[in-house]
Parts: sequence; structure tokens; C-alpha cells
Amino acid sequence: MALVVQKFGGTSVADAERMRGVADYIARTCKRGDRPVVVVSAMGHETDDLLDMAAKVSKSRPGREMDMLITAGERKAMALLCMALHDLGIAADSFTGSQAGVLTTSEHTKARIVEMRPRRVEAALAAGRVPVVGGAQGVSTDREVTFLGRGGSDTTAVALAKALGAEVCELYTDVSGVFSADPRVVPGARRLARVSYEEMLEMNAAGCPKPAMRSVEFARTHGVPLHVRSSFTWEPGTWIEEESVMEHPIVSAVLSDQSEAKLTVAGVPDRPGVAAKLFRALADRLVNVDMIEQNVSLHGTTDISFTVPHEDLADAQEVTSGLQAELGASGVFADPEIATVSIVGAGMKTHPGVSATMFEVLAAEGINIEMISTSAIRLTCVVRQSEADRAVVALHKSFCLDSDDDPGGVGAPASGRSPGLGPRAGQSARAPK
Amino acid sequence: MALVVQKFGGTSVADAERMRGVADYIARTCKRGDRPVVVVSAMGHETDDLLDMAAKVSKSRPGREMDMLITAGERKAMALLCMALHDLGIAADSFTGSQAGVLTTSEHTKARIVEMRPRRVEAALAAGRVPVVGGAQGVSTDREVTFLGRGGSDTTAVALAKALGAEVCELYTDVSGVFSADPRVVPGARRLARVSYEEMLEMNAAGCPKPAMRSVEFARTHGVPLHVRSSFTWEPGTWIEEESVMEHPIVSAVLSDQSEAKLTVAGVPDRPGVAAKLFRALADRLVNVDMIEQNVSLHGTTDISFTVPHEDLADAQEVTSGLQAELGASGVFADPEIATVSIVGAGMKTHPGVSATMFEVLAAEGINIEMISTSAIRLTCVVRQSEADRAVVALHKSFCLDSDDDPGGVGAPASGRSPGLGPRAGQSARAPK
Amino acid sequence: MALVVQKFGGTSVADAERMRGVADYIARTCKRGDRPVVVVSAMGHETDDLLDMAAKVSKSRPGREMDMLITAGERKAMALLCMALHDLGIAADSFTGSQAGVLTTSEHTKARIVEMRPRRVEAALAAGRVPVVGGAQGVSTDREVTFLGRGGSDTTAVALAKALGAEVCELYTDVSGVFSADPRVVPGARRLARVSYEEMLEMNAAGCPKPAMRSVEFARTHGVPLHVRSSFTWEPGTWIEEESVMEHPIVSAVLSDQSEAKLTVAGVPDRPGVAAKLFRALADRLVNVDMIEQNVSLHGTTDISFTVPHEDLADAQEVTSGLQAELGASGVFADPEIATVSIVGAGMKTHPGVSATMFEVLAAEGINIEMISTSAIRLTCVVRQSEADRAVVALHKSFCLDSDDDPGGVGAPASGRSPGLGPRAGQSARAPK
Amino acid sequence: MALVVQKFGGTSVADAERMRGVADYIARTCKRGDRPVVVVSAMGHETDDLLDMAAKVSKSRPGREMDMLITAGERKAMALLCMALHDLGIAADSFTGSQAGVLTTSEHTKARIVEMRPRRVEAALAAGRVPVVGGAQGVSTDREVTFLGRGGSDTTAVALAKALGAEVCELYTDVSGVFSADPRVVPGARRLARVSYEEMLEMNAAGCPKPAMRSVEFARTHGVPLHVRSSFTWEPGTWIEEESVMEHPIVSAVLSDQSEAKLTVAGVPDRPGVAAKLFRALADRLVNVDMIEQNVSLHGTTDISFTVPHEDLADAQEVTSGLQAELGASGVFADPEIATVSIVGAGMKTHPGVSATMFEVLAAEGINIEMISTSAIRLTCVVRQSEADRAVVALHKSFCLDSDDDPGGVGAPASGRSPGLGPRAGQSARAPK
Repeated sequence: MALVVQKFGGTSVADAERMRGVADYIARTCKRGDRPVVVVSAMGHETDDLLDMAAKVSKSRPGREMDMLITAGERKAMALLCMALHDLGIAADSFTGSQAGVLTTSEHTKARIVEMRPRRVEAALAAGRVPVVGGAQGVSTDREVTFLGRGGSDTTAVALAKALGAEVCELYTDVSGVFSADPRVVPGARRLARVSYEEMLEMNAAGCPKPAMRSVEFARTHGVPLHVRSSFTWEPGTWIEEESVMEHPIVSAVLSDQSEAKLTVAGVPDRPGVAAKLFRALADRLVNVDMIEQNVSLHGTTDISFTVPHEDLADAQEVTSGLQAELGASGVFADPEIATVSIVGAGMKTHPGVSATMFEVLAAEGINIEMISTSAIRLTCVVRQSEADRAVVALHKSFCLDSDDDPGGVGAPASGRSPGLGPRAGQSARAPK
Repeated sequence: MALVVQKFGGTSVADAERMRGVADYIARTCKRGDRPVVVVSAMGHETDDLLDMAAKVSKSRPGREMDMLITAGERKAMALLCMALHDLGIAADSFTGSQAGVLTTSEHTKARIVEMRPRRVEAALAAGRVPVVGGAQGVSTDREVTFLGRGGSDTTAVALAKALGAEVCELYTDVSGVFSADPRVVPGARRLARVSYEEMLEMNAAGCPKPAMRSVEFARTHGVPLHVRSSFTWEPGTWIEEESVMEHPIVSAVLSDQSEAKLTVAGVPDRPGVAAKLFRALADRLVNVDMIEQNVSLHGTTDISFTVPHEDLADAQEVTSGLQAELGASGVFADPEIATVSIVGAGMKTHPGVSATMFEVLAAEGINIEMISTSAIRLTCVVRQSEADRAVVALHKSFCLDSDDDPGGVGAPASGRSPGLGPRAGQSARAPK
Repeated sequence: MALVVQKFGGTSVADAERMRGVADYIARTCKRGDRPVVVVSAMGHETDDLLDMAAKVSKSRPGREMDMLITAGERKAMALLCMALHDLGIAADSFTGSQAGVLTTSEHTKARIVEMRPRRVEAALAAGRVPVVGGAQGVSTDREVTFLGRGGSDTTAVALAKALGAEVCELYTDVSGVFSADPRVVPGARRLARVSYEEMLEMNAAGCPKPAMRSVEFARTHGVPLHVRSSFTWEPGTWIEEESVMEHPIVSAVLSDQSEAKLTVAGVPDRPGVAAKLFRALADRLVNVDMIEQNVSLHGTTDISFTVPHEDLADAQEVTSGLQAELGASGVFADPEIATVSIVGAGMKTHPGVSATMFEVLAAEGINIEMISTSAIRLTCVVRQSEADRAVVALHKSFCLDSDDDPGGVGAPASGRSPGLGPRAGQSARAPK
Repeated sequence: MALVVQKFGGTSVADAERMRGVADYIARTCKRGDRPVVVVSAMGHETDDLLDMAAKVSKSRPGREMDMLITAGERKAMALLCMALHDLGIAADSFTGSQAGVLTTSEHTKARIVEMRPRRVEAALAAGRVPVVGGAQGVSTDREVTFLGRGGSDTTAVALAKALGAEVCELYTDVSGVFSADPRVVPGARRLARVSYEEMLEMNAAGCPKPAMRSVEFARTHGVPLHVRSSFTWEPGTWIEEESVMEHPIVSAVLSDQSEAKLTVAGVPDRPGVAAKLFRALADRLVNVDMIEQNVSLHGTTDISFTVPHEDLADAQEVTSGLQAELGASGVFADPEIATVSIVGAGMKTHPGVSATMFEVLAAEGINIEMISTSAIRLTCVVRQSEADRAVVALHKSFCLDSDDDPGGVGAPASGRSPGLGPRAGQSARAPK
């Protein structure tokens, strides 16, 4: 009789057949005795299509009207899903964000939730009905319709799970979970049975796109366990929860990100305030700086290197070159051919040799490390883009993540432990010798 | 400074370009000094698409959810139109049916308006803003979202025009008005500058599909002048209004309808109650009977003929054949190869010879009349389907409706004359000698 | 038994209902005894949608694949139209550009027709079948699929009409013809029954968007009469043909174009070669210069003014300002708040006073003329944008083009008169006193 | 340097983002040194949309035009995919079925391949280019465009793999492979690393919908190994190949099918020819009879039970009831509340006790068996529909398929064996004690 929030993203309800499949799955949840509260996104690419349409119609696009427009997408999805449930004999009621008591700020197109008052949702549950709530929408304090922005359905789902005291917030999507590496690069990559919020956030930072960092942060803040899983195969997926309830693998995943470029400002006099001036100017231009490294030379000059997304490179170059004279730099060099390679693992905190191992593995592969950045549970190196895949394969193998290495590995799931899907500590987490 | 309700149908806002075109037109209305109140339908075929989608997802389709679904279409259109107006410097606010004070019954999918309380619309007008109202939607007395059914946007527009005291309700559509005959049959057919409500309703009954009979009736009841016009060419179209303000052409239009079939129950004893039994049984089966004719023979038997839409023919045959024995009829004969040909004109009331003229014209063409039906301002004959077009052409010409009667007429084929579009006044109204 | 090419544009076949309507119309053409050859564009916005999709998928978009992609749109339309004809008992065959013998250059995405060999089309006609040809597509000399570019369906239609010796090429579109002025500006504007190729081309140049100038030029070159008409109302529309078969109205239409801006290079020394240098530089930058005017002052300097489309204004300013020093100009001034107002009429050639009349009308309205440009049958003035609509209304009235000049005119506002659509011949052509 | 046919279904290329993702994956295949030949289906639901459109436009839908219409879908997909590859620096050429040498019968809408002459595909490969072939299309012996029917892209892929001698035909879809049971019913269900053609066909027969039986049969006939895998996660999936190269699990999967109903003809005299008459009549009515069971009683009468798809039930009842008197039956009873439960495994051939085990497991669960049907490697029981899920769970556990039971189980893949993805024989295949 668990209360479960089930959130279905756009690809999960992309067409009539999948919509009916989702209804069938919700009906199975009910028959198993659980009580689902459903949050649904707009079907397929509808939100993108609405944004495209708005862009074709208008240059100004006032926020009030944009939110009136975009929220039409979830209205359609929630109404259709209720119809499909009705066909299966499941009593269900659709609720807009307003009806579901999602109170938000009045920042149109990117409103934030300020309070949840899900009275009608609770009443529907009490009456044995399935509430189906439109994701990513709310009502502002001045009674206007608001939209929470892209990925806002996850936020709605987590907020509802918290407000209703649900056991878990299940995020149904088109992938079967979070993997130890990209299976396109490492065919032996395994699906992770569970990761901590912290690991997931570091994996997001290291280039893992799903689930959205925003919803993971929100879930961590509110202590809501997430279960990321597939609405195509319906297999159990990856749990994201408190580290304390988990054992700690040393390294959980190896990631690579090729979306950044490196800029180097060479020969800067080693004086206070130089970096401050540079990065203030970049921030003013809204350039997202990720990694920064500065090396002082013997001769009183220094080279400052930093990475930025490819789409910000032109702006960053312009800002930096504009400052070159003022900073007294000898040159500005852009390098778009880089990639980051990262390892992430909660156990790194307590296993000091991990970074050395990573450097040795890359050295053994003849791969040069150009920049290094660390957090408590992540270690990131910048390498040549052409060598990134090779680095990932070698690291994945060396940290014993390849599925051959571990008989109880990925997807060797449901091992009788409660909730029980993951690799055994010490195996997947075993540090390389 | 006229207050004008402007209603734009689906084809008028079918895509971004047309949406912007409509906004431009509304802006011109404002600049001319008039005050528009806009009613907008869902874009293009969106309502059909939503119904299709619902049919693919669900067999049961509960009304509450259907109305939640379908009204999403107008929400999108009204929000987009406000955005486009905003780009042109016109302050505009979108209003759902509920926000516009359209109070309805709670019959989902076909609610009827019970009261108009357009306070927010009036407030917007008072503030010099353009109100843009989603058509065909309202809120029921139990606060649920309702849909007025297909063609409901016209109803919203007329109801708003009445409630706000607008001078005219302009219905923008994809045709340039109402014609004196179908231009595919009669190339010299002309656009009518004005018709009375009565004439329009009779033309609807005689097979003219636009504007919808429901909105014409509603406009007549409330005394709201309609102006049916094109959002493609923006020419002035056809006014539909009180007969009293108009002169009376004898014949305004010639129409033909090929959507009906004829059924004859032959050799029925001429006794009271026979017809009652037959048409009660047909009514119970929901068969729409249009024309009815009964001829008593010398021998105490009678033949009853009636017309029904082709789609009701099978049902009607089944009902009638089932009653054959009980009625004592000698046979039941179906004839799907018929057509009606009608003339409609407000002046027919005061010109007694019109029917004789119509019969003479058909006789001169060698066209046999199979059934006749009349109203005060309409005269309808059933003829062979294969002869219907010829009948229309002959009648249009004989009642001097052809634009050729005017040497400068439209489409006057390559006659070397300079442009000229219409007949002279007084000609179209002249009865044939 | 006329052979007629009927071309249906995207809006004419935008959905299933309209597709069936077009089939019904073609069937009527056959039943009337004429022999149609049909050219059909992609449905609705399909070509735009395909281009959008390609832009989302690829930056490079190689031409061969683009043409393979885009021509899929007409394939669908032609196949569907044949199916709809089949339902009506009309034998019809669809033909791709290649099957129809449209041989083109190999410039992908904008191929030009080099030869027509419509053997299969002729064979279908000979067999009593209706050929339905996909518009805007062909096969190159190296046997690859090619696309003729936007508006290419008109070209296909005219080329087929020429090759097959058709009597007329009918272009069905969403407007009912060419008007004497924009009905949004001049409610009494009238549809022109016929214009000459020359007039139409001048009207295109003066801002009339439809039909596309390219197809008019092509039709003039090949002596193919065009008939532009509506597939919504099916009324006869506007014929475009040789002037010799027509009488000559002095002024056929009044047009305005607000899409251009004016640039003035002031105080240029009056020396040979100055204008050459300026306009060569603009041409090199691909700026489309429309009108040019140069006034020499007493003091040996001159001001050069010219108009360019708004979207070229920034480029034109950059080029011009860059040359300012070299040209010795005292300043460069941009003025985006202008509009052109034009009158077009074949009879202007033989009526010398027309330009004086135009200037007098504008003067009487207090409207200042800023630039003037003429052709044999067109007279264009640049005025303030805010005064353009007033100029058009005054000119339309002064040249007796208003349909009010005819007591039975279209849209003659609620005058109590019975229906009547047009002006009398001889009036629209009368020069103002 | 393996030659690999990669077939991407509609969901794999449903939108621009996924199309680019597929191109990226193909580019990785090239960079790894393999040589891909790509077959692509129409994007997302395009084929369905085209069929819907045709149904809205036409009742007759002649086959030639249908095939012209439907094949437009793959044309678009193949052109777009080539564009996306071009962006990544991969030279690629799109080929229609005709250009790829797919020669078919002339049965429109369901043509069959008669010969493969992929000369242009081979030439592209030889030139180091990636051929991208439109799926499910060909050219008939009379040179008309043909369509192979739904699922025809798989057929194109297998036929190309055979003709080109490819090592494997990879079918990319939205699920990650074939499972040992439906994960919605058995959360511990595992992905099968490999199954034999025979097992797959029996699983299809027992209710497993993907991959389509037709393509599996085609692959078996031509000895082409299939690899069914996910284009969402890109994990290795399920191989389908010759049994001889595999070890034999006793039971590979447990399946259930709830799409059939049972009809019983009771009290039929036990005479020759009774069943023949009944099933001939059903065959004549095109009813698909699946399982049949007949029990002779002591009293010389017999009950005949059989199953039919729910959609054929009404027809089957009508036929059967119509024969009741003639057959001398005492009654006809329909029962829609049944389900089949099946176990499939290549090892069943050599392990005689499997059926007894299945019956014991069901008995222990108190589940009554109503009908039984067997093949060499499949055993199917009819049970109450309400008990089917429970039966599946119990059987999956008893045959040790639950992933807990087997440390080397599902997804515990890539176990170092070549090609090496599956469970070890004797573990997943261990018969219950």
C-alpha cells in the first residue's frame, strides 16, 4: 500500500499507443495495491513545438501569454491519460497545476514553487481515485497561470512526493537508468542499481545529462528517493538516494564531456587582481566558466587556462582578447579540441590513492593530462579530444567496472536485498591494484 | 469608434503567418478608431486532431476530460494571437471562457450558454486593451471547464456581441461571403451583399453549409447583425441582418442539395394514423426526415414519399420495411439518385407567380419534378440527381441572377471589356417575365 | 474539349477535406468535357516543415539529399489526389517530375527547366486519364532528382501548358484574384477581371506578392494565359494575358509597399564615377537597390538617394558609410519610415496626363513626394509611411476605381440596395478629370 | 573491419535530435573500423500518419498510389540521415529501394522481395561511403514503386545483410532486447543475451511482439544473425541465431497472452468429419483458430474447445452457432476471460520432465489448467485470465529465471565469451528440482 509518485516524461506519452501503455502500467500499480499519484509532461515534443510556434508568431512573447500557451501541452496529456485510465476501469481525475495547489512565484516561463497545497489531490486519493497532475505548471500569487520551465515536471513530481509523503518518486524516461559509462564507448558498461544524490550531481557536472541536475538537487534537499527507470522496457532502473543508506563503491562511473573548449591567457604578470579582473569580465558577459587552472612560472609570469562551453567560446575569446593589453598578457590561445574525462564515486572520500591510480592509467595509455580538477568525490582531467574514448575505456576497465569483472554487477539486480538492486560494495567499487 | 466583435475561425489562424496576418488586421481596426473584441477558434484542424487523438487513446472518453482536452486548442490560439498583437504595439489580453464570464450548463462537450458576465472583457476594453477570448468554451455552474461543441466559437462571438452591445459581429472565414449559387456549377454566380436572417436560414435548410445555422439562429434571436467575410482577401462580404432594413429581392439564391435520398412506401390504405405510426418509428430510430409528400389515389390507397440523409437511408429502410406488413403497404422503394433544387428569396412572400416560373423553367428544360416543398420564402423541388446542375444553371439565369446580365460582370470571359465585377442593382431582383 | 492545366497550391490541398474538394472540382472539369492536366504542390506547409526539419538535423544540408527530401512532399500530394479522384470514378495517374519528363539543370534546390518531354503525360491524356504531376520537381541531366525551388509548381504548370498546347494555365490559390488595391486599406477595392503580363509584372514590382513574378515572366515568355483564382470559393478570378487581346484601362491598380527604407548620401562632389563606385560596392555586398535618385545642386555637389529592402538596410549602411570618405560625401542618412505608392495601368502609355493627376491628388491631400520613379506603365512615389494608406485611398478614388462609383458595388455598405457586385465597364478605366 | 547492416526503426529516428544521435552512432561505427550499411524506416509514426491521411482522403486507395505515398516516408528519413552524417564528416548516399536494387513482386502495399541486386550499394561501400537505404521499399518487375508492408524495413535489412554477406544484422529499436518475462509482471525478469531462431519464433507465437515473426523467419531462412538492441541506451541486446552455436537453456522465457478467447462446442456426437466441418467453416470466415482441444466422453459425445483472437470472437460465435444444429451439438459457450501461459526453451527437446514440472508449479499455486498445447520447444496452458500473472511469476521463479538465482544472469553480460553476452548454460536453464 505504498504511496508512489510516478512521473512520465514526454517520450513516455509520445503517442496514443504509449499513452495507453502508461495507463496500463498505472492500472497494474493499482492492482498490486500501491497508490499512484501521476505527474505527466506534454506529449513527445509538444513543448518544443509550442515554443517554435511562438517564435514564428512573435518576437516579444510576453510571459503571461507564453505560460498560457505552454501549459496547454500538459493539459492535453493529463486529460488523455485520464481517459485511457477510465477505459481500464480506473477512476482518475486530471488536475492543472492550479487545481493541484502548486503555488509559485510570478516569474513567468521560469516560476519557482513557493508552497504546495495539494488538497484536491489528497481528496482524490482519499476517494480511491488516481490523481493525474499536469507537470511543470502552477498558479502564481496573483492568480496567473505559470510555467516552471523545461524539466519542471520532475520538480512538480518531487514536490508532490514531499508534500504527500510518498515513499518514492519514480521518473519514467526513455533510458533504463544511469550507466557506469556511455555504452557507445564502453560496450561492457553497466547500469548502476543505485547512486547517491552527491554522486549523481557530480556525474551531472561531469557530463551526464539525465536526470536533470535541478530535480536531483531538489530531491536531495527534500530527502525524496528517486527511481529513474524506463517506460519502454519497465525494468527496475537506478535509485538515487541518501548516501547513508548505501554502501560506497570507490568509483561508480567514468564520464567524458566533449562540449567544452579551453582558453589560455599566456604570460600574464603574476600580480594580485589579474584573475579577478578576467573572470569578472567573463561573468559580466554571461560566459559559463567551468575549470580554471593557473601556473606560475619562475619568471614572474603565469598562464591562466579555463574551459567554457563551445557555444560561449566566441564570446569568451572576444572578452579575453579585449583585456589582453590591460592584463599585460603575451597571448590568448583557444583550443576547442579538448575533452574532460572524469571518475565519480562516493568512496573516493576515504580512499586516498584513487587519483594516483587515475593518473597512472592515463600514463600507461600514453595520454597526456592537460588540466586537473577535483571535488570530494570526483576527479576530472582534460585530455585531447581524440584520446577521450580511449581514456574512458581504460579507466572503466582499470577500476573494475566492466561487467565481466563482477559477477554480481549491473543489472544483476534484485539480489534479495531491500530494496536490493545494486552491485555489491567492494566489487564494483574495488580499486585497481 | 464602433465596438466590433471579430471572430476568426480555424483556417484564419491556421499557421504562424496567418496568425500574424490576423494580428495585423486587428491592429488596423484599432488604428481606424474602432474597438475590436476578438474571439478565436483553435488553429487549423487542431480540434479535429484532438478528437482523433482522444479516439486513439480511449473508447470511453469521459466528458470532463474531453472538455479539458479540447479547450486547450483555443488557449493556444488566443495566447499566440496576443503575442502577435503585442509585437505590433497593441496591448492585448487573452481570456479563457471562464475568465470571459461565459457561464454554461454542465453538459460536457455540448454545453449551452446560460449567462454572460464579461467583466474582465469590459475592464480590458475600458483600459484600452484588446480582449482576445477563446471561442467555444465556458465554465459550468459547478465550476468545471466546458466546451460548446463544434461551431461554438460563432456562438461565443454572437453572445459577446449581444452582451457588450457591439454594432456587428464579423465572422472571418475562408470564403468571401454567401453566393447566389455554387460558382462551381454557375460560373456567373455572384456574392450577395446582404441577406436576411430568414433567407440565410432557408438557404442553410436548402443545403448552404456556411455560416452554421446555429449561429444564424442565435444572431436572429438576439438581433445581432452578422458580417460573413474572408480573412484571405479581406474584402467586404455578406451581411446577415433584419429583413426590415433591406430591400427584398424576389430570388436571392438558387441552391442544390445532393445529400439526401428518397424513400417511398407504396399502396398504403388511406387511413388515419398510418403516417403517424411511420414517422414516430423513424423518429424513434433518430432518422432525420426532411421532405414528406403523400398522394391519395382514387382507389383508397396512398403513396408516402419522404427524404432522408444518405447516411440515415439504411436505418430508414430497415424501419420502413419492418412496418410494411403492419401498415398494409404494397412495397417500399428507395431512391438515392435524387437531388433537391431550391430558390430562396425574401420577396417571394409578396410575388405570387414565382413558383409558376420555377416550374416553367424546369419544364422548359425537360426536367421532371418529383416532389415539392415550400416555405414562405423558399421553394424546393426534388429532381433526378443527374439533372440538378442543369436545373440550377437554368433557374439562376431565368431569375436574372447571372452576372452576365451585367455587361461588366465578373469572370465575363475574355470579352475585351475592362474590369467590372457585378450586376446592376435592380436586376438581380427582377422576376422573370 | 479544352485542354486545361490546373495547378493547385499548398493551401488548396492543405488537408484531406480540401484534397477531396479539389478532386471533386477536377471531376466537374472532366464532366464538363474539358481535359485537365493537374499540377499539385506539397500539402499546406509541408515544404516549410521539411526545410525546418532539415535545418534541425543538419548544418551542411547537401543539395542532392535536400532535393530527395523536399520532393517527397509533392509525391504525397499527387498520390493522395489520384486516390481521391479514383473514388469519384476518374482514372488518374500520378507522375513525379522525372516521370513527367521535366528535364532540368543539376543545380540542386534551384534547378531550372531545360526541356519538357511529357510523353507519359500525353499517353495518359490519350488514354482518357487525368495526369497528376508533382510540382516543382524534375530530373537532371545526370539522372538525379531535382527541385525547382519555392514557387516552382507554377513553373511546372506553365511549362506543361506550353509543351502540351493547353488553352490556359489556371493557378488555384487562396485569394480570389488580383485586386485594384489592398481591401484592408481600400474597402471598395475591386477584383480585376484581367490584367496584361506587363501590368502584372509592374504590380509585382510595386509590391503585389501574388502570383509570383517568376511564373508571370515565364508565362509571358511562352505566351501562356494565366487565370489566377480561388480554390475556396471557385469564382472566376483574374486573367493575366497578352495586352493585345484587352482594352486598356488607364489605371488598373494602386499599390503600396512598406518594405523598403531610404538611404541618402549627401554632399557628394558632382564627378563622374561616384555613383558607379557606390552601386558597385552595394552590388558586391548583394544589397538589392530598388529606386535611385540623384539631384545636382548649384554648388557642384549632389545628393544620391536610393531605396533598399529593410533587411538589407544594415548592410547598405555599412557599405555606404565605409565609402563616405572616399566619395567625399558630407553625410549618410538612413530613413526607414518611408513607403512607396504606385499606380499601374497599361493605358498610361497613351495618356500623358496621368502623372500630373497623381501629383495633384497627393498635393491635395497634403502629402509630400520624396522620390519618383516611372516605367512605361507604372508611376511610383516615395512618401512618408504614415501617409501611405491615405495616399492609396485618395488615388483609388480619384482614378475612379472605387466600387462605390457603381451604385450596385460590392460591399457597398448597408445601403439598402439589393445585391450587386461590380462596377460598370468603362468606369474603372476612366481617367480622372 | 566487419560489414554490419544497421537497421533503425521509426522510434530510433523519431525526431531531429534522435536522427542526429543515430548519425553520431553510425559515425562511431565507422571510426571503430567497421563498415555499416544503414537501413532506415520512416520517422516516428509517419507511416501511420500517411495511412490515416489516405483513409481520410479516399475509400478506394489504389495500390500503386498507396505505395507512391507511403514510400515518401522512408525517402525523407534516408535523406535527413545522410545530411546528418555529412555534418559529421561521413560521406553517405541515400538510396531508394529501387536504387538499392530491391526487386519485388508487383503486389502493391505488400510486395515480396524476389531478388537483390545492390550494385549501387556495393559501389558506395567500395568508395568508402556509407549507403543509407530506405526500408520496406522496392521496385516491381514492371518498374513501379512498391512497398513491402509494415515491418518491411526489417526484411530489407535482412535481405541486404544476406546479399552483401554482412556479419550481423542489427535491429535498433526502443527496447533493450528480449526478456525472460514481461518486467511489468516479473520485476526480476532478465534480458536474454541470446536465443535461437526457433525459440524466438515460439516466443512470438506465445505472445512476444518484438521482433516481428516475419523478419525472424526470414533471418532463419537465410542464416543471418540478428542482434536486437536499443537505440536509447545503446547497450548490447539480444542475439538471435542458429541454435547450434549456442548452449541450450531448458527454459529461456515465460510468456503470457491475454488476447484470445475460448469457444467450446459441447455434446457433439463423436463422428468422423465433425471437426472438419467446423474448422472449414471457421477458415472460410477467415477466423484465426489457435489452440484446439477435443475430449471424447464415455457416452459417445465430445466437447471441442478452441481459442481465437478476441477480435474474431463474434464471427466465430456466429459461425459456430449457425452450425450447432447441423453438428448435433448440445451448446456453444464463449469464454473471453482466459489467458495462455507458455514456457519456451530449446533444451526442452532433451529434458522430458519439463512439462510435469510446469503442471506441478501451477497445481501448487492452485491454478487450474483448462487446455494444453505443445511444440518441441514450447509448452502452453490455458488458465483463468485473473490467474495468469501469478502463474508467470511462479513459473519464472521455479525455472530459476529470476535474476537473483543466477549470479551470471541478465545483463551480467559481456562475460568474456565471444560474442559473449548471455547467461551460462545450466544456470538460467537449470530445471527445477
